[in-house]
Order: sequence, then structure tokens, then C-alpha cells
Amino acid sequence: MGSYALGVDFGTGSGRAVLVDVADGAQLATAVEPYRNGVIDERLPYPDQNVTLPPDWALQDPEDYLRVLQTAVPEVLRLAGVRAADVIGIGIDVTSCTMLPATADGTALSQLPAFRSNPHAWVKLWKHHAAQPDADRINQVAAETGEPWLDRYGGKISSEWFFSKALQILDEAPEVYAAADRLIEATDWIVWRLTGVETRNACTAGYKAIWSKRDGFPDAAYFAALDPRLADVVDTRMRRDLLPAGARAGGLSPEAALWTGLLPGTAVAVANVDAHVAVPAATVTEPGRMVMIMGTSTCHMVLGKDERTVPGMCGVVEDGIIPGYFGYEAGQSCVGDHFEWFVDQGLPEPYHDEARSRGMDLHALLQEKAARQRVGESGLLALDWWNGNRSVLVDAGLSGVLIGATLATTPEEIYRALIEATAYGTRVIVDTFEANGVPINEIVACGGLAEKSPLILQIYADVTGRTFRVSGSDQTPALGSAMFGAVAAGAEAGGHDTIEDAARAMASLKDEAYRPNPSNQETYDVLYGEYLRLHDLFGRGGDDVMKVLRRLRDEAKSARPIAVEA
Amino acid sequence: MGSYALGVDFGTGSGRAVLVDVADGAQLATAVEPYRNGVIDERLPYPDQNVTLPPDWALQDPEDYLRVLQTAVPEVLRLAGVRAADVIGIGIDVTSCTMLPATADGTALSQLPAFRSNPHAWVKLWKHHAAQPDADRINQVAAETGEPWLDRYGGKISSEWFFSKALQILDEAPEVYAAADRLIEATDWIVWRLTGVETRNACTAGYKAIWSKRDGFPDAAYFAALDPRLADVVDTRMRRDLLPAGARAGGLSPEAALWTGLLPGTAVAVANVDAHVAVPAATVTEPGRMVMIMGTSTCHMVLGKDERTVPGMCGVVEDGIIPGYFGYEAGQSCVGDHFEWFVDQGLPEPYHDEARSRGMDLHALLQEKAARQRVGESGLLALDWWNGNRSVLVDAGLSGVLIGATLATTPEEIYRALIEATAYGTRVIVDTFEANGVPINEIVACGGLAEKSPLILQIYADVTGRTFRVSGSDQTPALGSAMFGAVAAGAEAGGHDTIEDAARAMASLKDEAYRPNPSNQETYDVLYGEYLRLHDLFGRGGDDVMKVLRRLRDEAKSARPIAVEA
Repeated sequence: MGSYALGVDFGTGSGRAVLVDVADGAQLATAVEPYRNGVIDERLPYPDQNVTLPPDWALQDPEDYLRVLQTAVPEVLRLAGVRAADVIGIGIDVTSCTMLPATADGTALSQLPAFRSNPHAWVKLWKHHAAQPDADRINQVAAETGEPWLDRYGGKISSEWFFSKALQILDEAPEVYAAADRLIEATDWIVWRLTGVETRNACTAGYKAIWSKRDGFPDAAYFAALDPRLADVVDTRMRRDLLPAGARAGGLSPEAALWTGLLPGTAVAVANVDAHVAVPAATVTEPGRMVMIMGTSTCHMVLGKDERTVPGMCGVVEDGIIPGYFGYEAGQSCVGDHFEWFVDQGLPEPYHDEARSRGMDLHALLQEKAARQRVGESGLLALDWWNGNRSVLVDAGLSGVLIGATLATTPEEIYRALIEATAYGTRVIVDTFEANGVPINEIVACGGLAEKSPLILQIYADVTGRTFRVSGSDQTPALGSAMFGAVAAGAEAGGHDTIEDAARAMASLKDEAYRPNPSNQETYDVLYGEYLRLHDLFGRGGDDVMKVLRRLRDEAKSARPIAVEA
Repeated sequence: MGSYALGVDFGTGSGRAVLVDVADGAQLATAVEPYRNGVIDERLPYPDQNVTLPPDWALQDPEDYLRVLQTAVPEVLRLAGVRAADVIGIGIDVTSCTMLPATADGTALSQLPAFRSNPHAWVKLWKHHAAQPDADRINQVAAETGEPWLDRYGGKISSEWFFSKALQILDEAPEVYAAADRLIEATDWIVWRLTGVETRNACTAGYKAIWSKRDGFPDAAYFAALDPRLADVVDTRMRRDLLPAGARAGGLSPEAALWTGLLPGTAVAVANVDAHVAVPAATVTEPGRMVMIMGTSTCHMVLGKDERTVPGMCGVVEDGIIPGYFGYEAGQSCVGDHFEWFVDQGLPEPYHDEARSRGMDLHALLQEKAARQRVGESGLLALDWWNGNRSVLVDAGLSGVLIGATLATTPEEIYRALIEATAYGTRVIVDTFEANGVPINEIVACGGLAEKSPLILQIYADVTGRTFRVSGSDQTPALGSAMFGAVAAGAEAGGHDTIEDAARAMASLKDEAYRPNPSNQETYDVLYGEYLRLHDLFGRGGDDVMKVLRRLRDEAKSARPIAVEA
């Protein structure tokens, strides 16, 4: 009779439960529950009220998270044929910063009839971008008051982050702000619903809410400078006692036990985030190896013994990923999305015909054709800024460039140039970490792109000069959550005492290694030199054509209604 | 009973005969004869010999030209029901530089069984690009000896031009060069076959064979420096007595009268070139109005009273277009080809579906969608160098750029950005002419793109700040050739004494005028400023990324066979 741990990964469109063996990480069963209301970006899901949302909004329904606990979790237990008594721990991870207002008893405000028709009462999903004016104010005031914490976040707080979203609620719906006893990350809220007790995790606080182990949150004077009503936000609506990853948040409540089919009292791990739990699940619990979670966008995670200021990263948080280390995070905002855009907006009809007749996925077809090209043969070079640049330039106003096109240029050449551009973007991040004292000797990839695209991994290896390995699990975040669940249970209960122990036992890599090809590296070094010069020219103010184009675009778009009325 | 003139326009894929009324230019009949052997770029059209051609070759069969005279010309007479006696003159135009070796009696070498299997015996079409090493030598030697004529050609002789092709014959097939009593432009060769007498025109000599009215051809010492065997090329294989446009080359020979159904002795005009005959047919016989022949590429033609050195033009030739004026020519090497590339290589399947279901041409569909965009709304800017840059940078090694792409970028936005890029390219040419003393007040467009695309003409008007008119005839070059035929006949025979008289009577413009929209102009001025800065950065040596990419491409391509063998 083994010991098992359950991981639940709450993604953007669905929740996924995975049951694994604590001894070796073997995956016994998995179940996926799509969110009934998905990403809410047009209207609230109550047709009788017909509440439409402005552009850039992205909400979720907290009831959808609870349904995952009520359906996917019992389903994996049933599929695996495992007794509830043998499940020793549960861990979860959620996208972040995904946050909501709640009452003091843990009820989401959107669950209350009085607030159901107010968009600000709902969960603000990570990609809710309507708080940009609030983020601008946060950055402007921080610059004026010389806040010391800006450096930890690459010099800029994002519109996606916690206080941008909180400030938007206060600005636009003070009644919601007033009724919100708590403002809380969704991941902490779900753990609260599992245990019946509110706890807060250090990871999201550090990466998304300007907290650090040494300095805590920004002080009340700073918040007051943003808005006097916000001065006491931390003490009235958040918590200052934050728990590190791997700690035990509590035991499963009787109510949650009924939902899930697990036993009351089962150890529940402190809340965590999808990208961050993936790190130990990809075998990384020490400095020197970077984990890349490659999906629509890419997160780069690496551990360090010391705190370093690395320009343009998303954040550095002590204990943020693995207790005892500084966890560094960087990001590329357009990776899988980039290739998807090309297939949607740039792929001619004959490629669709060929893919259909050969029963192939369009990306697989393009990668097959792109793999036949020699490095440099297309004569193309791209800047991978179709969705701005997160690291290291932290500038959403940058845009994509393709250079070198001729009448002989083919779609598979452009497709490969876009892949290469994202690889150059990764190399900028790797080189920036190294130049600032955070070594990166090897890279472990996980996520959809890493699973499906040997060509992409080989190009990344050739461009960065680093060996790429791939996480052994195809459910890396869920495995990571289960590992933290096993640590929350502890060795005495059949789990593990540390995440390092859990990683040694439960995490693995696939056999294949993508090693740099010296001849390809040589050509890519030249191409990267060209990329880097153009990156700096267009990205660091040498030539502001992108800013001019963006300004003209915004003027033209804002002029349109006037023209229509005229 | 009227007087009629016949124009025959020999294009790249077919010949087109048009019969027009000399009094008003009205078009009575037209007939097209596709070339049986088309563009010969893979193998010679004698399957039993199986002679394959290297890359970059493009040949034609001179018999195809004769077949046009034997079929299309009788056909228009039949269709129009016009008596041969009422056709007073014939003019022709051909692509250029399209040249061939011939014997002293006017037989093309490829017509002789002994030479039929030698590719160098055939007509080298204008887009035969295999003489680049010869062009390089021509330019290198000219630079070393400080030839004064380089300035007249924007500083560089093209691989497409006469002596590049002649030198390639000498280099690679000295036996063909030895057997060639004559090296001659196809347009002069066809007139020779019509009249039975060899004449040469000043237009192709000036634009393609380094001749000027004042200085003649380069001297023997220069040719000897290229190759001692070439020293006497002009005196042994060409002619120094060159006839201006509009002159009478001779009367129709009895043999050609049998081919065509016209009367022996009918006036035949001096040979001419498609782009150049279009100028008076587009009503332009004076300085100040530019003619743009807009097709796969664009030719820009303008007249001047004085000879000016305008950087980056294709050539300036006294009497080259209209006797008494200096004819300036500039060019953009990628216009219609640019849009065609996009439709072939970048247009997603749903656009094909929509065009099919609405029974629309793909370009018409894209232009309909592009016309809905406000100026600047796409946030895109392109450099129109998909096929290098002819004027004003004269650099085939430059390549295309697209800047400003986002995940929201649509195909119709890219398509419009490519149109705008070609408009900026035209503005560079217009502004360069004006800055060097060649005024351009209005522009007359002709050719396929001008006929079919009001959106393109409006964008060009907005970008250049010039009013665009469109030639009244949809067969502008053939009309121009007929006009020169009427001038060759002269007023006494029922024609016209000068091309100016012919233009007043026979040429016209369509009613529509595309005038600059001041509000669009204002935004385009800003965008053009960005274009111009990037044009100079990438095109004038400020940033050599395109040259690096081209070098890597060529290295990768040349490395391929080795890799395959390995």
C-alpha cells in the first residue's frame, strides 16, 4: 500500500487534478475540468443582467474553481482506485496575479447576490489588462518617492499585478472595495476554501504584491500617496504573516472533504503558482539550472544564493520558489502566441491543404519544413516583440520586426525566424542573468512547446549555447503541486520533509538532451550579434520608430468614432 | 475613310497588336498572341537535345516574335475590317534590355541548326540575371578607369544591360560571339525583320548600352580593358548611327507584308521600348509630369530640358523618350510582385474562402478591407525592398523590412503596409528628382495596377502630395507604338509630323483624378519621416544587417551541396 499526493493545477481555461505516487512521482490518474464560464471578457455570465465588459477586461468565476475540487478530484481517486486514506497531502497552483475581493468568512464577493452584477466583485484574471492607468500611477508615485523596491521588479510594476488591480477596484468601484474584507490571490482563496482557515503564501506576495522577507510590504505613506483610502490596505484587507512554499497551510476541512472525497485533516500545502511549482517538479532545487515554462508565453525561473539586482527581470523573491534561496523570475510575453498568430494570420491555403491531406498539425508541418533549413539560409531576422517585451526591456509598447524578406521568402522561413527570435530573446535573458552574477549552466524546459517541438529546443540550445533538458512529466505544474502536498504531509506521514527530498524522489527528466551544435552556434552567434544591436537600437531609445507608430495607431483608433459620427 | 496606325507591344509572355484611329486614338481592335515558348528558364525548347539552363537564366525564342507578326497583326485587321491601304504606319515596342546575336543578314543565331543547342545563341530576356559577374567587372573597371558615364546611370551598370550580356556571351561562349556578326536589341531586330534593313534606336542605346548623343559609346580602350576581344565590339557588331524615336526606320518589306497582311512600303517607326512609348501615350510630351508604368515593377519616366545628375536613377538619355528632351528613368524593382508575393506566401485560408464565396479577386478583397483602415491605424511600417532597391539606392542586396507587428496585426494591415511602402519608395524618387532640379508637379499612371486599384492611387497621392491621373488607354504601350507609327508615316500620309501632335490627337487621360487628402497627408508625412530615416539607416550603410544576412544566406546555400554529400 503506497502513499499518494494530489496536485491540482488551476490554469486559464480549466483545472487539472493529478494523483501521483509519493515514492517515485509516478502518475496514477489525471482528470481535467474545463471552467464552465471560462475567461469572462465580454459579459458577466448572467444573461438576465446583461452586464458587458470594457476592452482589456478578463474575469473568472470563483465557483469554477470549486467545481474542479468537486469533480476532477473525486474523478482521479476513482480512476486510480486509491483509498482516500492513502492520499497524504494535497497541493494546488493557480495562475497569478489572479485575485478577488472576499468577505471575512471567505465568500467571494461575486458569490453574493448583492454584488453579482458588479464586474469588480469577480476574480480578476492574470491577463486582465484594464488596470494600466492604475499601474502607471503606482510607477509614477514610486519614482517620485524613490521607493527602494522598484529595482527588485526590473524597475516597473505591471498592470497585471496585485496593487494595480486593487487600486482599480478602489478607483472604479469604491463600494466593492468597502465591502471587501479581504483582497486575496485566487490561489490563497482556494486553499482557504480547502482548509477553512485563511493563510497567505510568500510567493505571490513577493512576485506580485511588492513584498519581501526583509522589508515587508511598501509602507502606509506610499499607499496613502496613491490614495488616502488605500493607506491601510495591507492591515485591513491582507496579511503580513506569509508562509513559505512547502509549509502546511492546514488540514482539509470537513466541507472540503465532502467535495473532494478525501479525508478531513489531509495535509494541504500553502498556496502556490503554476510556474513556480514547476521548478522542483523539473528537478531543479539548486542554483545554476534555469527552468523555462514554455507555453503561450515563457517564464524563466532560476535560483540564487544571494540577492542580485538583475535589470529587467519580473522579480526576485527570497523563499519565493524554494525555501532558502532567492527565486528569480523573468519572462517573454509572446512565444507560443507568436507561432499561433503566424498560423492564424500568415499561413497560405496550400499549407492547410497539405496538413489536412497528411493528417498533420499545422505547427508540426511547419516545423518539419523549417527543420530542413540550414542556419542562416533564410536571410531573415526577427525581433520577437509581437506582444511587447517583458524581460529585459519591460516595455509593452515595443512591437515586432521582420527583416531580410525577399520575393523568395517562404512561410516556413518566416516561421523559423520567429522561433529563432524567441530563442534570441531567451539568450538576452540568460546573458543578463549571468552578467549580473546569477549563473545558468543548463536549462530544463517544460510546458506544451517543450513537449512537442524538438526543433524549437535544438534551436534554443544552439542559440543560447546551453544544453536543454525536458521535464519528465507532461503535467509538470500539477506534479509540483503534488510534491508540495507531500512535503506539507511530511516524512513521518509517508511524504517528504523537504522539497529537495521530494524532488529527488518524485521529479525526473526525459532521456533526451538537446546539446548545442558547434557549427550552428557559430552562425547563430553572428545572427545574435545582429539581433542584439537591433534590440538595443529599437528597444533602448536609439530609434523610437515603434513609439511613433504606436502613437499614430492609438490616435487613428481613437479618431475613428469621431469620423463615424461626422 | 480614316487613317489607322498599328502598334505592337512585345511583352514578357505575349505580343499584343492594337489598331487605332490616327485622328483620335480610338482603339478599333486588339489581338494577343502568347509566346509558344514563353520565358525559357529551365531547358531549351528542343526536348531531343535536353539542354538545361543554370539558375538566373531567362531566354526567349525569336521565332515567337515573328509569330506575333504573322498571327496577331492579321487578326486585328480582320477584326477591325480595315483595309491594309488605310494603315499608314506601324510601330513596335519590346522589353529591354532583351538582346540576341544575329548574322549579317538578320538571322538570329538560335535559328541556325548549328547553334540551336547553345543557350548563348538565344535571346537573352531583360530578366536574365546570370551576367552579374560580367556586370561586376564592367563596374569595377569603370571605377578604376574613372569612366565619366557612370554618373548618368546612378553610378552602376546593371547585370540586365547590354554589355553585361554581351560580355557573358564572350566569356562563356566565344564561338557564339565569333559567329555573331551582330549583337542587337530584340526591338531593333524585329524592326530589321519588318523592313529588311538594319537600323538602331537611340533609346535602348542610351538607357541600356552606355551611349549618349554627345559622347557616343565608351571608347575602345575601355572595352579592351574588359577583354581585348571586346575592343571593337561597337564597330564590328553594333552601329554608331542611331535614330531618334519617331523617325522612320523604313518601309515594310515584301516578306513582312506577306506575314502581316499590310502593304509593302508601309511606314515602320524606329524600334522602341514598352515603358518609353507609354510616355506620350499617357499625354506627356513636356517636363513636369512624371509617367509611372505600374506593373510587377514600376518605371518612372520624366522629361527635362537640361541634363542633370540625379543620384540613383536608371539613366538619363537625350532624345531617349521624346526628341528634344532629356529623358530620365528611375525604377522600383518590386511593386506588383510585392503584392503578389503576399497573396501567394502570406494570405490565410479564410481569405481564400471569402474571395471564392463572393466571387472576388484576392487583391480586390484585400483592397476592400485595407480601404477601411485609417492612415496609421495598423501601426505598421515596411521598407519595400523585397527585391532590392533600384532607385535611388541601386542596391540589389537590400531586403524587405516589416516593423510594428503585434498579435492583433491582420493580413489586410500588412497588405496595406506593403502598398504604403511602395508609395514611400516613389516619394523618395520624386523628392530626389525635385531636389536635383527635375520638377514633378503631377503624375500619370498606367499599367495593370493603375487600372485596377483606386486605393493604391489614392495612397500614392496622399504619400507623394501629387495628383495622380490615369492614362486613358488600357493598352498604353501599344497605343504609344501606334502613335510613333503615325509619326513615322507623317502628316502628309495622313499621320502626324511630331509625337507632340500625335499625343494631342491620340492620347488621353481618364476623367478621375486622385488628389492628396490633406488629413491623410499630414499623417503620411510623419510616417514617411520614419521610413526615410530607416531607409537611410539600412540603405546607406548606417546599419549593415541586411548585408550580413545576405552573406550568411549565401554561405548557407552554397554549403548545402557539401552537407548533402557528407
